[in-house]
Amino acid sequence: MCFSAAATCTVRKTDYAFEVTNQTVNIKFSVLQDLQNLGAQNVCLMTDKNLSRLAPVKAVLDSLSKTGVRYKVYDNVRVEPTDTSFKEAILFAKNGSFDVFVAVGGGSVIDTCKAANLYASHPDADFLDFVNAPIGKGKPITRALKPLIAVPTTAGTGSETTGVAIFDFEPLKAKTGIASRAIRPTLGIVDPVHTLSMPERVAANSGFDVLCHALESYTALPYNQRTPCPHDPIARPAYQGSNPISDVWSRHALHMVAKYMKRAVRDPEDLEARSSMHLASVFAGIGFGNAGVHLCHGMSYPISGNVKTHSAKGYSVEHPLVPHGLSVVLTSPAVFSFTAPMCPERHLEAAEILGADMRQVKRQDAGAVLADTLRHFLFDLQVEDGLGAVGYSKDDIPALVKGTIPQERVTRLCPREHTEDDLSQLFEASMKIY
Amino acid sequence: MCFSAAATCTVRKTDYAFEVTNQTVNIKFSVLQDLQNLGAQNVCLMTDKNLSRLAPVKAVLDSLSKTGVRYKVYDNVRVEPTDTSFKEAILFAKNGSFDVFVAVGGGSVIDTCKAANLYASHPDADFLDFVNAPIGKGKPITRALKPLIAVPTTAGTGSETTGVAIFDFEPLKAKTGIASRAIRPTLGIVDPVHTLSMPERVAANSGFDVLCHALESYTALPYNQRTPCPHDPIARPAYQGSNPISDVWSRHALHMVAKYMKRAVRDPEDLEARSSMHLASVFAGIGFGNAGVHLCHGMSYPISGNVKTHSAKGYSVEHPLVPHGLSVVLTSPAVFSFTAPMCPERHLEAAEILGADMRQVKRQDAGAVLADTLRHFLFDLQVEDGLGAVGYSKDDIPALVKGTIPQERVTRLCPREHTEDDLSQLFEASMKIY
Ligand SMILES: NC(=O)c1ccc[n+]([C@@H]2O[C@H](COP(=O)([O-])OP(=O)(O)OC[C@H]3O[C@@H](n4cnc5c(N)ncnc54)[C@H](O)[C@@H]3O)[C@@H](O)[C@H]2O)c1
Ligand SMILES: NC(=O)c1ccc[n+]([C@@H]2O[C@H](COP(=O)([O-])OP(=O)(O)OC[C@H]3O[C@@H](n4cnc5c(N)ncnc54)[C@H](O)[C@@H]3O)[C@@H](O)[C@H]2O)c1
Ligand SMILES: [Fe+2]
Ligand SMILES: [Fe+2]
Repeated sequence: MCFSAAATCTVRKTDYAFEVTNQTVNIKFSVLQDLQNLGAQNVCLMTDKNLSRLAPVKAVLDSLSKTGVRYKVYDNVRVEPTDTSFKEAILFAKNGSFDVFVAVGGGSVIDTCKAANLYASHPDADFLDFVNAPIGKGKPITRALKPLIAVPTTAGTGSETTGVAIFDFEPLKAKTGIASRAIRPTLGIVDPVHTLSMPERVAANSGFDVLCHALESYTALPYNQRTPCPHDPIARPAYQGSNPISDVWSRHALHMVAKYMKRAVRDPEDLEARSSMHLASVFAGIGFGNAGVHLCHGMSYPISGNVKTHSAKGYSVEHPLVPHGLSVVLTSPAVFSFTAPMCPERHLEAAEILGADMRQVKRQDAGAVLADTLRHFLFDLQVEDGLGAVGYSKDDIPALVKGTIPQERVTRLCPREHTEDDLSQLFEASMKIY
Repeated sequence: MCFSAAATCTVRKTDYAFEVTNQTVNIKFSVLQDLQNLGAQNVCLMTDKNLSRLAPVKAVLDSLSKTGVRYKVYDNVRVEPTDTSFKEAILFAKNGSFDVFVAVGGGSVIDTCKAANLYASHPDADFLDFVNAPIGKGKPITRALKPLIAVPTTAGTGSETTGVAIFDFEPLKAKTGIASRAIRPTLGIVDPVHTLSMPERVAANSGFDVLCHALESYTALPYNQRTPCPHDPIARPAYQGSNPISDVWSRHALHMVAKYMKRAVRDPEDLEARSSMHLASVFAGIGFGNAGVHLCHGMSYPISGNVKTHSAKGYSVEHPLVPHGLSVVLTSPAVFSFTAPMCPERHLEAAEILGADMRQVKRQDAGAVLADTLRHFLFDLQVEDGLGAVGYSKDDIPALVKGTIPQERVTRLCPREHTEDDLSQLFEASMKIY
């Protein structure tokens, strides 16, 4: 099988200013060639059960089996992974003595593969060692990992560009993660053809993730207001606050979302729109991977973690699920109303990019205008009407607030200081959005 | 001395999605800390005679001498280096057994330092081994180099982001260079305060370099039309043609040039404008470092190389010189008139960004409109009136064409095929520009 890719780009860790492959690219060939260049002898291919039956995985498998390279497939990635599912993948990786990892899938697969690679390279480490504090110990990663090639199939998380792996920590019913440049993939193969098979809701929800990555990183606390200021550049956190460079990526991603997302969701055959959203996910990934995200993401982690019975349309999974992109976007109207007073210009600019009519809009309307624009956008894309529609009621707010507290790695990038009461009010305002 | 930097950014080779330092940054401290993080024991500081008396170098020296780190200074970099001046710096590097290089200066210093680092790591190599074919042998670089920290003081070349080192090859009277990702600096410290002392003409000429990097990379042959298409991604050239990622950088840099360049040239105290141009030079550097440049640069190399008596205002040098940015921009009206028919939309967009009145402009006017816009821009910035004004006449055209022929590394990225006659006509059309 040969994919003719409109805009196949590869993102190299050591060469971040993307390399762009030339002309028609055969994905089998390309991955294989990259594996050979990495001297791969024993490859671990990770994916999920659903994707293992679909074209991108089939193509890689097909070509792998034709060569002499030894490989094993792990297709038991959990959609929206947990500590338990991470540990299972880690065990597989530890037992396999792999020298290269290939992740073909959405954020769930890429994140799981990052964790598997990390702990297989640190066989004596305790699982919580590298998990973000305060939930984990947040220890620095000192040993070298094996190369990881990420082939994203959603347009989406941007996980192929970031040093972040997110999982649901079941004991706390909230997501947390591992954040270190060391786990960033060596190479991302960004081929829009892989996204054509995404079901409508997967396209929508992963697109909302792109939207929120762009909006949150663009409105994150500026890098020169973040405290404490480390004395040594090496001590800077991965999420550094909005800055002139991440701004370029975040704003550009937002433009692309505004222009292409509705088309990409509605028409899976619209290659231009799906290609553009796939690139937008990369761009937003670089933007937020440097600047950080804030409240929509911080609050989403308990929204996903406390899920009761909500079943996600279009996601071929058995377990209840509020998909990441949905859990993030449901609070966005409330969040940006709240943050707007701190940087109204950026909120107004975002509203304008997303198509708001800006005539007669005043600075103090920034929050209301962006929130309304987002509500229209969500309504047009048939998003569930707030947290109420995914199974939450007012009684759940204390638990949701509690699960947000440990997310300070992201919430401290919120441009506006906030109390637990503020969080309660934001959850409450998000129960119903239209 | 402590610099309070409006937008201090560091560009890491292994972490290309820029890291942005936090808050007020003390440049002495920052470089020192980075040197310590690199385990430096014996540092080579390279600069030029003029800069060695100015604030950025003084600050670094001052702090270096207070610590225990051994260092030596090489301040004999030639402004617009030659093979001879490169070799002298290489000899210094070979004799010093340095473990880290620090380049403080414009493109001339950074490029010289890249070459010194390269050949000191390959003591047996012949000078032409790594020089671009067809002038040199274009051999691949296989050994690891020492870390190089680049501190640019012009807003300019973007050399802190690229794997390119340019020099004038005296036997041919034309510039050529070394191009390999291996020579890209480990770290760039982009602090706009360093550019405040640039004389007016250095600000103007280095700014024109940014302008042409942006325009040429944005109009370069698209990546999917470049031939031959290598079968292995590892064989892709550094300059890959315009692509969706370099486009973001090139277009953004162009916007910044349009908004800030005149202010930055006219008022050396305008920190916002000088900061913005400094960042624009980084952005354009990433853009062209991936997409490539084409005719303005290809034709500029013999314009610099054949210089007779022209002395460059504001450049504290004894030798005749057509500064790089000037040699590049003088042909730009002619070049973009010539290339416009291949991608008129991009030429029109560039003209619009640079402030052209687009009412009633048609597609077929793209070349004329962009050329006129450039002429106005150059006139406003008091640029010499064409090649005639820097000492060339029609009689020199054959030599200029001859010096352009070996520049195919860049000229093959021109979107329009061209003959030697075309080149003659472009030089002729550039003799006088207003
Ligand atoms: N690491 C990061 O930087 C980062 C950022 C944001 C989110 N995340 C995490 O990523 C996860 C979400 O990832 P996601 O949104 O990419 O979705 P996903 O990986 O969870 O996949 C969602 C569903 O879509 C299916 N699917 C994926 N691609 C498909 C395709 N091309 N065709 C058909 N079906 C396809 C999957 O099989 C699955 O059923 C969450 O766990 C979230 O927390 C990580
Ligand atoms: N490597 C690349 O990617 C690349 C790209 C474009 C150009 N170049 C090369 O770079 C060279 C030109 O570099 P440039 O334009 O940066 O100028 P430069 O390094 O040649 O410096 C020009 C003059 O300005 C002075 N100067 C520099 N910074 C100053 C400051 N802050 N205050 C006062 N004086 C200052 C220098 O001492 C010198 O006299 C050329 O050789 C060109 O071919 C390289
Ligand atoms: Fe996300
Ligand atoms: Fe240049």
